[in-house]
Amino acid sequence: MRRALELAAQGLATGVNPRVGCVILNANGETLAEGWHRGAGTRHAEVDALAQLDPGAARGSTVVVTLEPCNHIGRTGPCAEALIDAGVARVVYSVTDPGQHSCGGADRLRAAGIEVQGGLFANVGEAFLADWLVAARLGRPFVTLKWASSLDGRAAAADGSSRWITGDAARLDVHRRRSASDAILIGTGTVLADDPALTARDADGVLLPRQPVPVVVGRREAPASSALFAHPQQPLFFDGLDLPGLLADLHKRAVRSVFIEGGPTVASAFVAAGLVDEYLVYLAPTLIGGPRLALTDIGVAAIGEQRRLSIHSLDRLGDDVLIVARPLTP
Amino acid sequence: MRRALELAAQGLATGVNPRVGCVILNANGETLAEGWHRGAGTRHAEVDALAQLDPGAARGSTVVVTLEPCNHIGRTGPCAEALIDAGVARVVYSVTDPGQHSCGGADRLRAAGIEVQGGLFANVGEAFLADWLVAARLGRPFVTLKWASSLDGRAAAADGSSRWITGDAARLDVHRRRSASDAILIGTGTVLADDPALTARDADGVLLPRQPVPVVVGRREAPASSALFAHPQQPLFFDGLDLPGLLADLHKRAVRSVFIEGGPTVASAFVAAGLVDEYLVYLAPTLIGGPRLALTDIGVAAIGEQRRLSIHSLDRLGDDVLIVARPLTP
Ligand SMILES: NC(=O)c1ccc[n+]([C@@H]2O[C@H](COP(=O)([O-])OP(=O)(O)OC[C@H]3O[C@@H](n4cnc5c(N)ncnc54)[C@H](OP(=O)(O)O)[C@@H]3O)[C@@H](O)[C@H]2O)c1
Ligand SMILES: NC(=O)c1ccc[n+]([C@@H]2O[C@H](COP(=O)([O-])OP(=O)(O)OC[C@H]3O[C@@H](n4cnc5c(N)ncnc54)[C@H](OP(=O)(O)O)[C@@H]3O)[C@@H](O)[C@H]2O)c1
Repeated sequence: MRRALELAAQGLATGVNPRVGCVILNANGETLAEGWHRGAGTRHAEVDALAQLDPGAARGSTVVVTLEPCNHIGRTGPCAEALIDAGVARVVYSVTDPGQHSCGGADRLRAAGIEVQGGLFANVGEAFLADWLVAARLGRPFVTLKWASSLDGRAAAADGSSRWITGDAARLDVHRRRSASDAILIGTGTVLADDPALTARDADGVLLPRQPVPVVVGRREAPASSALFAHPQQPLFFDGLDLPGLLADLHKRAVRSVFIEGGPTVASAFVAAGLVDEYLVYLAPTLIGGPRLALTDIGVAAIGEQRRLSIHSLDRLGDDVLIVARPLTP
Repeated sequence: MRRALELAAQGLATGVNPRVGCVILNANGETLAEGWHRGAGTRHAEVDALAQLDPGAARGSTVVVTLEPCNHIGRTGPCAEALIDAGVARVVYSVTDPGQHSCGGADRLRAAGIEVQGGLFANVGEAFLADWLVAARLGRPFVTLKWASSLDGRAAAADGSSRWITGDAARLDVHRRRSASDAILIGTGTVLADDPALTARDADGVLLPRQPVPVVVGRREAPASSALFAHPQQPLFFDGLDLPGLLADLHKRAVRSVFIEGGPTVASAFVAAGLVDEYLVYLAPTLIGGPRLALTDIGVAAIGEQRRLSIHSLDRLGDDVLIVARPLTP
């Protein structure tokens, strides 16, 4: 399964399809073939692995795959049928398929007399597919909210100046994560105040190969001279009045992950709506005080209503600290 | 020197006097005697070590001591003279004495023909004596500012409720640190809002052996029924208009360390005045939003004026995070 996860990791981390890896073993536990999914429209991992073998060579084999084999007829035909046709003896998978149309693969295989075991390394498998699983279960992209603030929770000084609170290492980390996201989202307030390019760049300012789609929310118009119009991807605009609708729309456009970079008003609106799956809080060792907060109001009146998170990781990035946290009850 | 520091650590961590340890070695590097300072009015470490030896036994020895031997005539007579009288050959020390009246011991020893070497393990020695050194150099207590907040910098929910933001482990840590401080300081706002006991307690609520002196700042009066009047130490009251004066007054009362526990107004006043030597920020994995900030205004108008700190340590305490930070330029 470890090898299958390694193979899966070679796939595309973005788009509507999950990253899946597959290893086919003979009765002695020797590897016969390996496969992985390379993105929408290409072969699923199981079929990719089977394709390495001569017809009949998979008979009696054990198939180890990171996600429950699918049961629907998509662009590539159901994997469950392909495995049955190949005459495999045993299928071991990690994560159960949550898809409404694709699930049921395990039952289909069992009905055909194949020995099936699910849930192997399920924690590791689910963590690996976290964003895709959220997208598949909720029908919306995985939402990451990032902010950079002082230790006292300020995102800018009183006059609005905020360059720089965090250091180079933190900013590079942000660009790397932007590049791994399908979309980057900000409010019109930030467009008008900062005119950000919304591109993912390396330490020298050179564009990274993958660029997230820029998404701007708010009713005000971005000036035609805005830097975001020079973005390699066509920007999308929403009024921001219906955040779940906005996310559903992005999901339909094959956006699996959204990286929200603020400002405070838009960030707080997503928090208040309970639509954030992961928080990236970059804390700089500095104190600012004053009125410019990283989060404004999130609808918490009494302490019992606070939004409890759990800390997923805590790291030092240069002089700064990165806290990755997730909602306690997802 | 390591052993001398171990001995020093046996001394009292509070009060006007430093913790000092001393080891006397013969020419073969064998330990002849050890000593340490047990608090104001008791023997200094060097004299304590010499007192273990028969008259004349220290002749030609090497004295290893964590702080430069003092040169003033206090309650115990200058250590430099005692070492000269004992006929020691060599004195090695770590930290230079910053005291106006006590410094010059090294020069006095050299003038008497003794070989003197200072600055050994100076980093370790200075870190160990950090609070006493601040007190000695600046003529005021070492000031620690503590607050507990959500990840977004809130110290309470909109209605003022704040029990609890952090968990048991963080609260126990606060009580342990209270007990290690000479004084605990809060504003009248916190007295009136929370009526805190200001005692240092263990996990079962039992009073710890050492209790800091409660200090209340502000012009309003604390109601006679306030819990702080039941504190084992007599509370002190200041109007808070002259914070340096307040600290100088505490220093005269042999207060070497002050633990500021808020609220936000008083905390921000000490930050704005540049009077904080160490920050303890307990961050709970929760979001609160709204108007109740851990720090209010600290006089930072533009980002160039932000108060940069350096992170001294970063630890997880139960579900919470403790960041210990110090001003970048002390
Ligand atoms: N430190 C950081 O991490 C960071 C990151 C980004 C920005 N910033 C700073 O944040 C400041 C801008 O703050 P901001 O709060 O004005 O920016 P913002 O959150 O980017 O924009 C606020 C605007 O978003 C629109 N909007 C869209 N959907 C919304 C919804 N559901 N609820 C409420 N508003 C919605 C509204 O604009 P319409 O009126 O157009 O509808 C609203 O005025 C700048 O100074 C910038 O430097 C800091
Ligand atoms: N989460 C935490 O770590 C934490 C800790 C403590 C308190 N709290 C919360 O904080 C809230 C109380 O906030 P607060 O800001 O009113 O409390 P505060 O800072 O304790 O008290 C403010 C008062 O201190 C006095 N003061 C003395 N010296 C001052 C100076 N140099 N500058 C300004 N004021 C000075 C003023 O009172 P006079 O008018 O009497 O002069 C001022 O109104 C409570 O809700 C409490 O629960 C939270």
